[in-house]
Amino acid sequence: MSERQFHLNAFLMGVGHHEAAWRHPNTDAANLLDVKHFQNLGRIAERGKLDSVFFADGLAVGPRVKHNTQAIFEPVTLLSAIAAATDKVGLIATASTSYGDPYTLARKFASLDHISGGRGGWNIVTSAGADEAANFGLGAVPAHSDRYERAEEFVDVTLDLWDSWEEGAILLDEETGVFADPDRVHRIDHDGPRFSVAGPLNSPRSPQGRPLLVQAGSSESGKDFAARYAEAVFTAQRTLEQGQDFYSDLKSRLIRYGRNPDDLKVLPGIVPFIADTEDEAKALEQSFTDLISPEYSLRQLSNMVGVDLTEHSLDAPLPPLPDLDHIQGNKSRYQLVKDLAETEKLTVRELIGKLGGGRGHRTFAGTAEQVADELTEWFDKGAADGFNIMPPYLPGGLEIFVDRVVPILQSRGLFRTEYTESTLRGHYGLAESVGKRSRATVAVEVSA
Amino acid sequence: MSERQFHLNAFLMGVGHHEAAWRHPNTDAANLLDVKHFQNLGRIAERGKLDSVFFADGLAVGPRVKHNTQAIFEPVTLLSAIAAATDKVGLIATASTSYGDPYTLARKFASLDHISGGRGGWNIVTSAGADEAANFGLGAVPAHSDRYERAEEFVDVTLDLWDSWEEGAILLDEETGVFADPDRVHRIDHDGPRFSVAGPLNSPRSPQGRPLLVQAGSSESGKDFAARYAEAVFTAQRTLEQGQDFYSDLKSRLIRYGRNPDDLKVLPGIVPFIADTEDEAKALEQSFTDLISPEYSLRQLSNMVGVDLTEHSLDAPLPPLPDLDHIQGNKSRYQLVKDLAETEKLTVRELIGKLGGGRGHRTFAGTAEQVADELTEWFDKGAADGFNIMPPYLPGGLEIFVDRVVPILQSRGLFRTEYTESTLRGHYGLAESVGKRSRATVAVEVSA
Ligand SMILES: Cc1cc2nc3c(=O)[nH]c(=O)nc-3n(C[C@H](O)[C@H](O)[C@H](O)COP(=O)(O)O)c2cc1C
Ligand SMILES: Cc1cc2nc3c(=O)[nH]c(=O)nc-3n(C[C@H](O)[C@H](O)[C@H](O)COP(=O)(O)O)c2cc1C
Repeated sequence: MSERQFHLNAFLMGVGHHEAAWRHPNTDAANLLDVKHFQNLGRIAERGKLDSVFFADGLAVGPRVKHNTQAIFEPVTLLSAIAAATDKVGLIATASTSYGDPYTLARKFASLDHISGGRGGWNIVTSAGADEAANFGLGAVPAHSDRYERAEEFVDVTLDLWDSWEEGAILLDEETGVFADPDRVHRIDHDGPRFSVAGPLNSPRSPQGRPLLVQAGSSESGKDFAARYAEAVFTAQRTLEQGQDFYSDLKSRLIRYGRNPDDLKVLPGIVPFIADTEDEAKALEQSFTDLISPEYSLRQLSNMVGVDLTEHSLDAPLPPLPDLDHIQGNKSRYQLVKDLAETEKLTVRELIGKLGGGRGHRTFAGTAEQVADELTEWFDKGAADGFNIMPPYLPGGLEIFVDRVVPILQSRGLFRTEYTESTLRGHYGLAESVGKRSRATVAVEVSA
Repeated sequence: MSERQFHLNAFLMGVGHHEAAWRHPNTDAANLLDVKHFQNLGRIAERGKLDSVFFADGLAVGPRVKHNTQAIFEPVTLLSAIAAATDKVGLIATASTSYGDPYTLARKFASLDHISGGRGGWNIVTSAGADEAANFGLGAVPAHSDRYERAEEFVDVTLDLWDSWEEGAILLDEETGVFADPDRVHRIDHDGPRFSVAGPLNSPRSPQGRPLLVQAGSSESGKDFAARYAEAVFTAQRTLEQGQDFYSDLKSRLIRYGRNPDDLKVLPGIVPFIADTEDEAKALEQSFTDLISPEYSLRQLSNMVGVDLTEHSLDAPLPPLPDLDHIQGNKSRYQLVKDLAETEKLTVRELIGKLGGGRGHRTFAGTAEQVADELTEWFDKGAADGFNIMPPYLPGGLEIFVDRVVPILQSRGLFRTEYTESTLRGHYGLAESVGKRSRATVAVEVSA
């Protein structure tokens, strides 16, 4: 078995990542409403020895209501039900730092970590949508830089709260009646520009101490934020070269924060259409593309590029787009879509087809062997430490990955054949990194 | 079977309600940290056909850290894991309206309701602790009246959000690609003194539409709030007469809000010590009392009465207490403790013994028959629609109630022998009441 090992996360979304998945004969749309479907997905991921499963999240309905499915479950409560149906697989939920408060969030993720015996992770997002702001008393989405500043303070407080109970603080001494050693349970007395929090957390230290920190922003501020805090990064990269650039850029930033490049795993997304032959895989992909609703896709594309395209001709190229500086939403996704349309000279219709599978993430249609080769190439050539697997349809698209691609990776010595660890940090080879990021170290990082 | 039926809720707390439960040989303190223990409690409650299980919650560690156990799990995530291990029993979690925001809360409880197939309920509290305020950026706990005003707006917004997806809004029409009917998914555009929320909720209508609303405040504002919103009320009443007064007071208030007395179930708490003989039951209770730590109890009692008693003699009566007007915390618990100490002329030590079992709730030691008789008397004489069962130790104290007391109530035709409904509202006989509380009705209530 080679030294360096793949890390695989299953990014789960309803009955699949493809926007038309729920209409496709390969899925059962009723599963959208059924928690048992999601528990089943957790078990399939565990059968494949995957590091983790992951749920995205948004704080508004958005333009989805008519033509795309709205998630039914909130990620942390859903993962708690999945925890009850699995033993080993990691459980990562998205939550925003732009709304809500650190005490509630720290507690919720500590609880997930307790419930799952150390399998919890937090995908930190800053919520780019104006519709999200309007559900939390704001007239407009806060500026990109404000969101990242708030995110830093939010995460600092959260980490302090998770650390507010030292390891071993619980004594459970029945003889003397001492539950916890008060000298090992600390107030945090945080008093910052946005938050003022006394602590300690109303949850004793969880099995991992700190649930895994995941991040998925790719703007300059996003990458700096990731370099400072994240232990795994999800990212949308369409070509090997772009993937390599992103990978080396991000890893080199870690050093500024006194971190080791291995302390953060880079996981590009891939939407795999897998079949016995390449032709069948391409036909499978096409059968999904054929179901795309242009009305819905145009609205989604409009959101991504910051221009209303709903009256724009499908067979023309994109109109001139605003400058990156004017995008207050997801800057990196804007850039990706703009580059894609320009380099491949796509009409809007073609662009929509390309984006339908994974909203900008790389789609790949081929045999299990071809998928394994593609992933191995990215892994070997310095573009990835593993992958964010985004099955276009569920559960089938996850099953075929687990049953056909994973065994190839295993036979190449690139992926575990059994779990060797019991925590999410353990799976990602990060069990030791928590100790390194003590409160004192964080303070030094800040002034570095 | 008689017409009117008992409703039984199991109020679960760690390894038991008695503050020294974790030190008693009847419990295993390690269960405090084990989600399987709580899933087992859910299954025991379901074996007894209980209406629901319930978890309290507080947003700070409080004075508990050394001598009393700190809850490990957050209630909603915990109930989600219990939902996965049960099929019928209702699942009620406490959450505060004084911190956090309605969008997040509405979504969390909708998710629990989806996950459990319509078994979710919300115990609405206003968080009386100063230590709680300090975790959310406030220097002091907001005034009692402010908390209740905020609670009203908070609940109004939450109800509107739950109603923002009409029944049947999800079409899942695979042919036309229409997921939901946009005409049946509504913005709420709430713009009030404390909250401004656009909606709709990012969760389609849950199985119950509105999770059950539970409340436990007993001050004047608390009772008015309950009369307006609550569908079940938990309350601490020590004597039959007090219970009758509270019951008729609360039920008569319902009429002001255009509600029927049956729309709200009053559930007084009881901490039952059950054994084969009365003497054995009393000895069992005494064995718990013997384990009480005076240091911890004094701090808790100090909190209840608003005076620092930690230097006060254990064998003297209470010192003069502040006026009720000066209590910004839990007014009704203050009154109960003051009355108890005065009428029974108790020393502080005696008072602590009386409070140890249930922090002011009625404790009762006797045979299963005696417990059933006592409950039946309260039920028949207009003091209760059912009970909030607070087992002093767990799981044993719940098992003995379910296995010995429930069959007696069943044989008297006072309690279901099988579940006849599948939702929490169904169990409480309130399945119809949601329809009555449409948005229009709420608006009328407000101006009444
Ligand atoms: C795989 C992946 C998953 C993401 N999941 C979410 C999500 O669930 N919720 C969200 O608001 N943003 C999500 N994002 C967006 C990013 O977290 C980030 O907010 C966005 O890229 C804007 O930040 P940036 O301007 O730094 O790129 C995701 C991005 C990627 C690549
Ligand atoms: C059975 C019962 C359970 C309660 N659970 C909680 C709780 O979990 N969290 C909380 O903050 N208050 C809890 N309370 C307190 C009340 O909800 C309420 O906040 C308190 O009585 C103060 O309100 P009041 O001044 O109107 O009585 C509970 C009360 C009772 C009787």
